[in-house]
Formats: sequence, structure tokens, C-alpha cells
Amino acid sequence: MTRGPSPDRRSLPGLLRTASGIVVFGASDDPSKAGGRPIRYLRQYGFTGRIFPVNPRRDTVQGLPAVAGLDDVPVVPDIAVIALPAARVAETVRDCGARGIPLAIVFSSGLAEIGGAGAALQDELVRAAAETGIRVLGPNTVGAVSVDNSVMATFMTALDQDRFALKDDGIAFVSQSGALGGFILNLAHSTGVGIGTFVNTGNEADLGIAEIIEDLVALDSTRVILAYIEGIRDGRRFERALAAARERDVPVIVLKVGRSARGAQAAASHTGALAGSDDVFEGVLRRHNVLRANTVEEMLDLGRVMASRKRRPHGRRVSILTLSGGAGALMTDYAEKLGLDVFAWTDEWRSRMAEILPSFASTANPIDTTGAVASDQQMFIDSVGIALANPDTDLAVVLLGNLEAEEDLLCEGLTAAAAGSDKPLIVTWVGGSGRPLTALWEAGIPAYGDPARAMLAAAALADWAGGARPTPGGSADEPAGDAVSADEIIRARTRGRKFLDEVDGKALVARAGVPVVPEIVAHDADAAVRAADELGHPVVVKLLSDRLPHKSELGAVRVGLASAGETRTAASELLDLARSHDLADAALVVQPSLRNDVELILGMSKDPAFGPITLVGIGGVFAELDPDVQIRPAPVSPREARAMIDALRGLPVLQGARGRTPADLDALARVVGDFSRFSAGLADAADSVEVNPLLIGHDGAPVAVDALVVLADAPEDRLREDRPVRTDP
Amino acid sequence: MTRGPSPDRRSLPGLLRTASGIVVFGASDDPSKAGGRPIRYLRQYGFTGRIFPVNPRRDTVQGLPAVAGLDDVPVVPDIAVIALPAARVAETVRDCGARGIPLAIVFSSGLAEIGGAGAALQDELVRAAAETGIRVLGPNTVGAVSVDNSVMATFMTALDQDRFALKDDGIAFVSQSGALGGFILNLAHSTGVGIGTFVNTGNEADLGIAEIIEDLVALDSTRVILAYIEGIRDGRRFERALAAARERDVPVIVLKVGRSARGAQAAASHTGALAGSDDVFEGVLRRHNVLRANTVEEMLDLGRVMASRKRRPHGRRVSILTLSGGAGALMTDYAEKLGLDVFAWTDEWRSRMAEILPSFASTANPIDTTGAVASDQQMFIDSVGIALANPDTDLAVVLLGNLEAEEDLLCEGLTAAAAGSDKPLIVTWVGGSGRPLTALWEAGIPAYGDPARAMLAAAALADWAGGARPTPGGSADEPAGDAVSADEIIRARTRGRKFLDEVDGKALVARAGVPVVPEIVAHDADAAVRAADELGHPVVVKLLSDRLPHKSELGAVRVGLASAGETRTAASELLDLARSHDLADAALVVQPSLRNDVELILGMSKDPAFGPITLVGIGGVFAELDPDVQIRPAPVSPREARAMIDALRGLPVLQGARGRTPADLDALARVVGDFSRFSAGLADAADSVEVNPLLIGHDGAPVAVDALVVLADAPEDRLREDRPVRTDP
Repeated sequence: MTRGPSPDRRSLPGLLRTASGIVVFGASDDPSKAGGRPIRYLRQYGFTGRIFPVNPRRDTVQGLPAVAGLDDVPVVPDIAVIALPAARVAETVRDCGARGIPLAIVFSSGLAEIGGAGAALQDELVRAAAETGIRVLGPNTVGAVSVDNSVMATFMTALDQDRFALKDDGIAFVSQSGALGGFILNLAHSTGVGIGTFVNTGNEADLGIAEIIEDLVALDSTRVILAYIEGIRDGRRFERALAAARERDVPVIVLKVGRSARGAQAAASHTGALAGSDDVFEGVLRRHNVLRANTVEEMLDLGRVMASRKRRPHGRRVSILTLSGGAGALMTDYAEKLGLDVFAWTDEWRSRMAEILPSFASTANPIDTTGAVASDQQMFIDSVGIALANPDTDLAVVLLGNLEAEEDLLCEGLTAAAAGSDKPLIVTWVGGSGRPLTALWEAGIPAYGDPARAMLAAAALADWAGGARPTPGGSADEPAGDAVSADEIIRARTRGRKFLDEVDGKALVARAGVPVVPEIVAHDADAAVRAADELGHPVVVKLLSDRLPHKSELGAVRVGLASAGETRTAASELLDLARSHDLADAALVVQPSLRNDVELILGMSKDPAFGPITLVGIGGVFAELDPDVQIRPAPVSPREARAMIDALRGLPVLQGARGRTPADLDALARVVGDFSRFSAGLADAADSVEVNPLLIGHDGAPVAVDALVVLADAPEDRLREDRPVRTDP
Repeated sequence: MTRGPSPDRRSLPGLLRTASGIVVFGASDDPSKAGGRPIRYLRQYGFTGRIFPVNPRRDTVQGLPAVAGLDDVPVVPDIAVIALPAARVAETVRDCGARGIPLAIVFSSGLAEIGGAGAALQDELVRAAAETGIRVLGPNTVGAVSVDNSVMATFMTALDQDRFALKDDGIAFVSQSGALGGFILNLAHSTGVGIGTFVNTGNEADLGIAEIIEDLVALDSTRVILAYIEGIRDGRRFERALAAARERDVPVIVLKVGRSARGAQAAASHTGALAGSDDVFEGVLRRHNVLRANTVEEMLDLGRVMASRKRRPHGRRVSILTLSGGAGALMTDYAEKLGLDVFAWTDEWRSRMAEILPSFASTANPIDTTGAVASDQQMFIDSVGIALANPDTDLAVVLLGNLEAEEDLLCEGLTAAAAGSDKPLIVTWVGGSGRPLTALWEAGIPAYGDPARAMLAAAALADWAGGARPTPGGSADEPAGDAVSADEIIRARTRGRKFLDEVDGKALVARAGVPVVPEIVAHDADAAVRAADELGHPVVVKLLSDRLPHKSELGAVRVGLASAGETRTAASELLDLARSHDLADAALVVQPSLRNDVELILGMSKDPAFGPITLVGIGGVFAELDPDVQIRPAPVSPREARAMIDALRGLPVLQGARGRTPADLDALARVVGDFSRFSAGLADAADSVEVNPLLIGHDGAPVAVDALVVLADAPEDRLREDRPVRTDP
């Protein structure tokens, strides 16, 4: 497979795969020291290039001739490994850069991760790299590995054993954790998962995880990328990398910490990076069809199945074959939960299956071939062949167990059946010797010892194939929308306000094309009654103030006012309330009551890594307890907005479940898209915009009933910062 | 540990553990046949009792002297294994029973599971057992195993290998699937999980899974019970067994199929049993503090940790120690998701930890001891000791990885640290040789290769300890409530109705003590307006008919009527609607509008296995999409009702989140309890009762606004059936 222009030989993955000369600073004769291990590993795993240990105090290092300094290295190495004290790193990197070495891998710790003087040393390092053009991995990295050509530029103990031969199945693994990354690499190889490229990013002083993923995608040999992530610094670049991966059919599987509040806090205190919202991260993964693993085991399972040859089922219709009816039901549970379709077989294909199975077998999907497989393996193999031949089948999952005496025959048969079809076949083999798992993987058939793991792999194949066609949205070629003329914002800020009042807020979002409810501002009870008469009862009356962002909590919203008398009473009470809360300048706003079968929420806020984001979700009472929202970095196109709406759990309600008026989902998607572009353009002036509720009117079109705009600091303050997007204080 | 009176020696588990003589009908000289395998396994695994192969055509069977028939067996065996054609089973069971053999294990298939003639043969078998007093496991069972005394009364191929020595860790496994059960048994032993007793229940013609669990609980040697369940036939007995298990501190871990609709359907077609609702099953598990596993792997993981010595943390506060900050964040995510408390360490204990850790370590829980463990193992061990000594710690979870050269030292140290504390210590060791996992388990320390699995085990310990104190409810000693004088039901039935109308329905539930909304029945628009004036606007007007169970779908409910004019219009329109739908006898019911910050639903319906059940949950728009309900078999006590309410996701709303009126949760629990007892008593007359919505009034007390009672068939029909509870048609 060719992916267009060949990758930059000077990219980190490119250099790992082609390096022929490696210089090691801080080279140690002790093969258990950080400066000794890379030399030992390079030789132990058969690196065929040249190794230059730098050690001015020795003639040899681990039997290799030592050099006193870079000047004594006769060629320009591809990689400099630096295992020196922190204070000497920047100077060494500068020398390497000046010499023309393209890449330094810096093991040294005691830099930015300890703050203070360390951070200053890292700044120096960054300058040295920028000024000489050398790229830097780390500092504070355990290093990088390329199995194919035995480039072991690492000191991690994961390689400190010889139980297994490393292999390269086209799986690359980028980890923001050195320790856990090393454990996982070791676990992967001892369980047959061939991670051929490993990179630990360390402090990311220069090379970050986004760029490394981007460069890995460009390598023809990369079939799948695993990423262990603690925090993303450059969200937009990360998105570019994921977009490139999808474009080039390279699945990315992410294990990210910080799903829980406490976990996010722990990750932030560990990495020193601001933790973005996990919901935003999840939206980014959805946008780019990235698979998210929940556990280490899942990441390896999914990586392995994605590296297998047949990873493109044409749909989600799965045929399940077992030799136990109970196991079939169990696997059906898993399949349904994962959104696979355990479809009903046609009578014709059930008949074909019935011809070869025992009379007491069940030919309804899940198919129970019965225990007869113990005495007749060919029958079982033939049934798998029929399942794959059935044109309704997109992929087949079979369950076996034990059967040690028959395992060779069954593995051969399954291999032949799989070879006769272009559809994925996934095997669960519970118990037994374990040898079938190895044999089937070697034959290119994904095989697992647990039914749940097998079905998760099957669903991942369908997820990848189903989402691999990009649904563009938020891409750079979208029109950015009109520039914002934020009169309301300027006016409010000159009054020293932190928020826009409701009327100004809705005026602002109305400019984005969001329909807003009719309303009349009143300054006393008489005016409120006149307004209600004009709008028609029942009405809603609220306090209007730009110093009262959360009206409901103060009881400043009165709904369902059915008559002039009720309206008058409510208006008077609200004005009393305002006076008692030092809001004497508050007015009233009167609106007609709208039906509210379903409340939506539409918002913009800012993420430290991904900048302005767009949120759409179900609002109302339970939104606060069990949120049903979709979030993407802004802007989103109307098409992506529609995909966000379709992903809401509350979609059936929007579609008109139980006699409700169906929402016009295309109109809603247009509103979301327009709001997204517009509010992204507001990001310098406003920290957040929340339209809540956005109701569905009688005609199915969305109507904004309230809006809260939280202003950013004054633009003149902002101009002094050079970051395009600032963080919520 | 003594559990009172010793178990019935004639129980199946008792007999398995004490059998000294086993007779095998259909004994085969071929050790691979179903009639040959038990003989082979008994000898291979060292059974020390006597084996009597019955085979009239041979002198010897697998080298043992054969007998021609039961008459030639010199003693009364404890167990008869029957591997004969279906037609000969009943007669053989009868002979065995007559001879005084207490237990028959019937491998034969072709009985009830094939229906028709097979079902008749099974009926004969049941009669033979009942008449002679012999108990029967099966038919259609792969048999049973007791490792301790090598009773291998089975033909399953799981034993057909010699890779591992079977061991008994006090773990019993009851499986309704023979094939999958055998696979899991094999997997368990090859991964070190010592299942000492295995029973496959087969067709459950006599002995069912509930009785077997009950009998296992009575055995002192049982430390934990695993159950693979496809369908429960006798729900009440199953509940008794689970209650006994909790009473005697024997954790039960269940893997049950049928969580999804398709999976339940597959299970039902496989077992031939009616599948009860999985929600009811889940409620039963909650009531009795049963742990539910989602996967085979989880069932074995939880079984193993529950069989370990320290399974009683005093709370849910977990200290996490890792040598990688990222891994600590990952484990914190898992802990939080599972409801464990990654609590903040006090300054005092952080100082103690800081004294021994490197300066750049993090002493905030999760604690990052840093990679210094590679050079200083004692430091890490000491940190574990401090974590266990911290009085705030209920249990500790540590993560290590690789470190092959140091693994012996670390395992010894961890063992010593664990021995010095009565708190559970759980270890995750990712990668490396795998030997530490074995060594730690042998030392009584649960150890896993994946952080997620370790944390799941930790949470299971806390779940079991926290819920092991029974919260009685639904027990037989509850007063059954007043007998139901169901005038409304009798009246409606005489009119040929399937439902009670709303007014009669609420009159019925009012008798249970459920407060109901004031209401006035009106037969024309004038009367409706008068009623509205009396009740006070705004009002709700609905059609009243016992032929219109779902009013909303027809648009037969008008809410928020603010004036006489609106009420008159609505009333007229509703009566027109009734005429156009052939409901000319419908009346109107007028009620005051109530505020509805939150809607509840309260109901009774019937489960095929567990009989009448009580449901309480959050109602309203989203209940239909994302149900938030708790279900238990009726009756529930007010105390259990409170536990159900506390388990709702919407609890914060009921508690008054965001300025709502807090519900009186004790009053609500009393109403649920009263309704539960009352409606359980209605179970012969009504198939279901649904109070929907049950609103929370201004005083925080619940008020029923609507009720739907679905009538059962006439009692005279019912009396012809002898089952106490019938199934929904």
C-alpha cells in the first residue's frame, strides 16, 4: 500500500526505521544504568548500524570503543541519545544540532517536570533545538523503539528479558507515560501483540504526541496506532493527526485517563498540563472515528484485531455460531449492547444450515451447532462456511471450548473457512490448551479466550468500517461565518458587567440565525399586563438584569400566568424581589408560554486544549443528573451537527415519540451549525454562550427562550496574551 | 467456621463430598464415551471409593469388574450415574430409588429438552423419583465434580487433560449450561481459580439451581458460589437460597444471560423456560447483595477474590500506590466509576509517606512512589505498609510492572506488608514474567495483570462488605396487608372490561394508603366548568373511560387550563373526541393542576419466575428512553422501599436539587411499602397496577394523579389453574 509521498526521513518514526548511526551521551559501561541500557539493548536485539558511546573517561564501553566527545564521531549519526545530568542537556543538544544530527532522544529528568530551575533548563533546551534545527524527543522520556531494525533507543526495563522474540505487526504505540508504557509494551509482546514501534513522549518540550501520530500515519508500515494519553496540549494539531489517520485508513485506538473528576485531577497534577474536559475529548474521538479503549487489555485487543487483514465488514450484521445455546445467548447480549445486529436468518439459509446440523440444533441466529462438534469437526467447519456464505452476514463470531484432541483439525478447518471468504471471522475459544488462540492468530484469524472480548473486537471492526468514511465538519475549509459585531458585548462591558442580560443575549444569538421567542420588556406591573395582553396568555414573566445570571435559583421566573390578574401579581412580586436583592435597576421581560415536550440546550464554551467548543443536548430537569449532550470543537458543519443530534439518547423524543410534534431535525442541525460558527467567532469576547432552553415549537422548529452570555475579560487585556484561545479562569 | 447444624448428608453437595460408592449405568469400556469417561476420570483423579460399572455384556469395564445389574452391586452406592438411552432412564431411576440410592446423576438427553415424547419420558422420570425418594440431577446434565475427594461424576471433556492439578479453594460453581460450564471449569483451573465443586443442572427435572445453591451454602467448605444462569424457574426458592447465602456470609457471584432483548429471547428458546425480566432479576440480586459479573473473566476474578482470606474492608476508602503518575490517574478513574473513594490523605499521613519517598514523588492519593522502586524495593514496600497503616485506608491497591529481577524481593515484601494488616491489599502487576501473580495469590494476596481487573476486585470486596448486613424486606414475616375488597374490580369485570377507569383505579390505590389528587367527574362542559371553579384554576381535564387505557396518545388530556373559557372549550373538544372514537359513554374528570418538578412512577406487575413485583422510578418524558427504576419482588418493606428510592439516579432531584421542594422520602417509602403489600395481594385480580404520575406536592408528600389497573382474567378461570401466579399473556 502506498500513501502518496514517502514520509519525511527526518520525522521521528522515519528516523527510527532508518537509523544507521546512534551516538549515546552519558554512555555507561554498566548495562543496568540508564546510559548503559540502550547500548546493551541495541546489541542484544541485533542493531546493525554503528553505535558511538561518548565517555571521555573510558577507552571502551561495554566492549565498544568509546569516543571522548562528538568531535571524535567520524560520521553524522541519525540519533543522539542523551543520558546526562539536566544541566548539560541543552548544551549537548546544541552541539548535536550544530553537527547536523536530526534527532535527540533525551532521557534526562529534572527539567520542566520539577518546575523552577528545571523549567529554565528546559527553556534553554527548546531554544537550542530551535536555533539548530534538531528535533527533540523528551526530555524525561524512557525513549523509543523500532523492532523492525532493532533501534532500541531506550532504557526501559521492558526489554530486560528474553522470554519472547519481539515482532512487528504494524502496530505503533505512543505513550505519554514511560513507566506504564513500558509495562504495556512488555505485556503486549508476551501476549503476542506485535508492537513494532514504541515512543514515549516525556515532557514534550518539542515533539508532541500529535505530531508523532501524524508522522506515524505517513509511514506505509503503520497499520494501527495505539495511544496512551494523559493530556492533550495542542488540540488542533491532534485533530489534524486524527483526520490524517482516518484519511489513510489507519485506525487509532486511544486509552486516556481523566474520565472521572478525581482521575482528571490526578492526571493534571502529574502532567502539569491543564486537563481539558473529557466530554470534549470524547467528541473529538467521535468526529475522527477513533476507537476508545477502557482498559489496557482492551487497547491491546483492539489494536491486534485492527492490525489483522480483514478489518472491513460491510455492516453490523453478525452471525453467531456456538456449540452451546447458553453461550449463544450470552454472546447475543454482548452483541446487542455493542450495537451489532444479531439478525434473523432467512428460511432459505436456515434450511441450508439445517441440512448439515443435527436435528436438535438451533438454526436461528445465534446458531447452536450442539456438542456434536466433539465427534464431527467437519460439520462445525461447514456450518462456519455457510454462515460466512450467507449474504446477510457481515461478520461471523464463533465460540468453541476445550476440545484439545480436536483442536488442530478445528484450527485448520477454521483457517480454510476464513480463507474462502472476504468477511471477518472471529473466534472465541474458552478453556483448553490455549494453543488454538496462537494458531488462529498466526493464520490471521482474531481469537480470544473470553466471549466478551471477542465480541468487543467484532464491534470495533464494524465501528471502524462504518465510521471510516469521513463526515466532514469543523474542517479548515468551512466558511468561518460573518465577523461578529458585538455591540451588546461592548455596551455591557463599558458598564462593567460580567454577563449580558437575557434580552441582549438573545439578540446576540439571533444574529447567528437562532430563532428566538417573541418578548416585550416592561418596567412596571401595568406595562407587564399590557405586554401579556399583546402576546396572549398564558405568559412567562422574568426579571431582566445583567447582574442576575441564574434567575431560577432566585425564583425570578414565573411561568403559566393565565390571566391579567396573575400577571400583575407576579410582576409586582418580581419587582419586590429585585429590590430586596439590590437589583433595583432590573426590568421585567414578558414572553408567551411555549409548550415544552422537550427542552434542548445549545452552547459554546472553551476547552484548554481544543479551544471553543459547541455543545448540543437535552435540557430540562434531568439533564443536570444524567447529561445527554454531544460536544465537538467548533465550528461544526450542519452535517456534523446532524450527526451530533442523531447521537443523543433522547433522539426518539425529538423524532416525535408518543405523539409529540417531531422536531425538524434538519432545521435544528442548521441552527446548531450556524450557532457553532458564529459563537466560535465570539470566542475572544465571550467565555461562554448558553441557549437554555431551546424549545421545539408547534411547527417543529427550534426557538430560543433564554440565553446567557458570559463575557471574557476586556479585549485590551486579551491582546497582551499571545495565545489565540485562553483558558477559563 | 461452623454454620450451625451440619448439612444434610443426602443433599447433592453433601453426597458429592462424601460418596464412597458410585454405580455407573451404561458403563463403557471405551474411555471416550459418555458412559466410559466418568469411570476413567474417577480413577485418573484418584477416587478412593468403589466403582460399580453396570454392563451385562462384559466381564470387565476399563479393567474393573463389571456387574450385570443393580442386584449384583453388593452395597448401596451413594450415587448412580446414568448414561443410558432416554427410554430406559425412568425405570433405572426407579430401581435405584427402590434400592435406597439417594442420588441419580442422569447424563441422558432426549427428554424434556426435545419436547413431545421426550417430555413424557421426563414426566415418568419425575414420578419414579417422587415415588421412591431418590433425588435426580439432570437429565441432560454433563454431571458434577467434587475435587476434594475426586468424585468425577461427569463426562465433560474439561477433565480430559492433565496440564494442571485440580485444587479446591472453597469455590463452588453451579452452571445451567453444560458446555459453557465445562469450558469455564477448565479455564478456571488453568488460570489458578480453584473451583472445588462443579454442578451442571441440566433439565432440572428435580434438583434446581436454587436448591443446589441452598445446599452448597450449608456446607462449611463453601467459601463462595459462582452461578451461570439462563433462567430461574422458582423465584421464591431462589430468593431463599440467596438470603441463606448472605446470612451465612457466602458471597454469590452470578453471570446471567438475557440482559438484552435478543439475548433473553435466545436464552428462552434454548431453555424452554419463560424468561423473566432482567430488571426483576437485577432487583433480586440487589436485595440479597449478590454480585453480578458481566463476563466469564469477571466471574472468575470475583470468585477468586471473594475466596481470599481478607474480604471485609470496613468501607470504600481506597489508597492507590503506583510507580507511575499516569497509572495512578487511570486507576483513580476506575475506582471512581466503581464508587470507591480515592480519599484525600491528611497532612500528617502525607508527611509520613514523604519521609520515605523521593522528593519528586507525589504523596497525594493516588500516590506516585516513582520509578525509584527499581533501585530501592524496601522503600516501595514501606510505602505500602504506611498506606495500610493509615487509619483512613479501608483497602489498598498497588500497581507494579515488569521488574523481573526484583520480583522475588517485592513479592516477599508485599506478603509481609499484607500480613501486618487486617485490611485487604490488592496488586496489579502489568507485564513481566507473570510469576508474581502466582506467588502473590499463593500468599493470599489477590493479584491481577490489568489495572481495571484489580480495581473491579477491590470494589467487589467493598460491595460485599458494605451490603452483607441484610436490610430485611419482602421477608415472609411481613404482615401481608389487609385482604383486598376489590369492588371496583368486580364491577368492571361484570361489564366485560379489561381495565379500571382512572377514577376507579385511584380509588383502589387510595385504599393502599396512596394519597390521590382531588377530582370531580363531569358529564358535560358546564359541569366541567363548575368543577374547575370549585377546585380552582388552573385545572386538568381528561376523558374518563374504562376502554381508554392510554389517554395521552389520543390527546385526551388537557393541562394548564387557566380559565372557565379554556376549560369549557377543552371539555367540549374532549367530548367530541370521545364520540369520534366510539367512546360515547366517556365522562370527564377535572383535577387541579399540580406543580411537577419531578414525576414518579409506582407500579405492580408480574414476573414469570418471581411473581408480583413492585416498581418505583422516575417518570416523565425521559423515563421511556432512559429508565431510572428499581424493581423488587413484592412485598417490599418501607425500609427496602427507601433503599430502592436511594438507588435511583434521580435521587438528588427528589432531595430538592436546584431549589426544588425536597420530597419527604420517608413518607414516599411508606407509600411504596403500603402499595407493595396491597398490590401484591391484588395479584390474582389484576395483572398490573400503574400509578403514573405520582407527583411530589408542595408539602413534599407524594400524590397520585393517574392510575391504570389492568384486570386479570376472571377469578373463576383462574381457580382452574393451580399455579399461584400466572404469566402475562
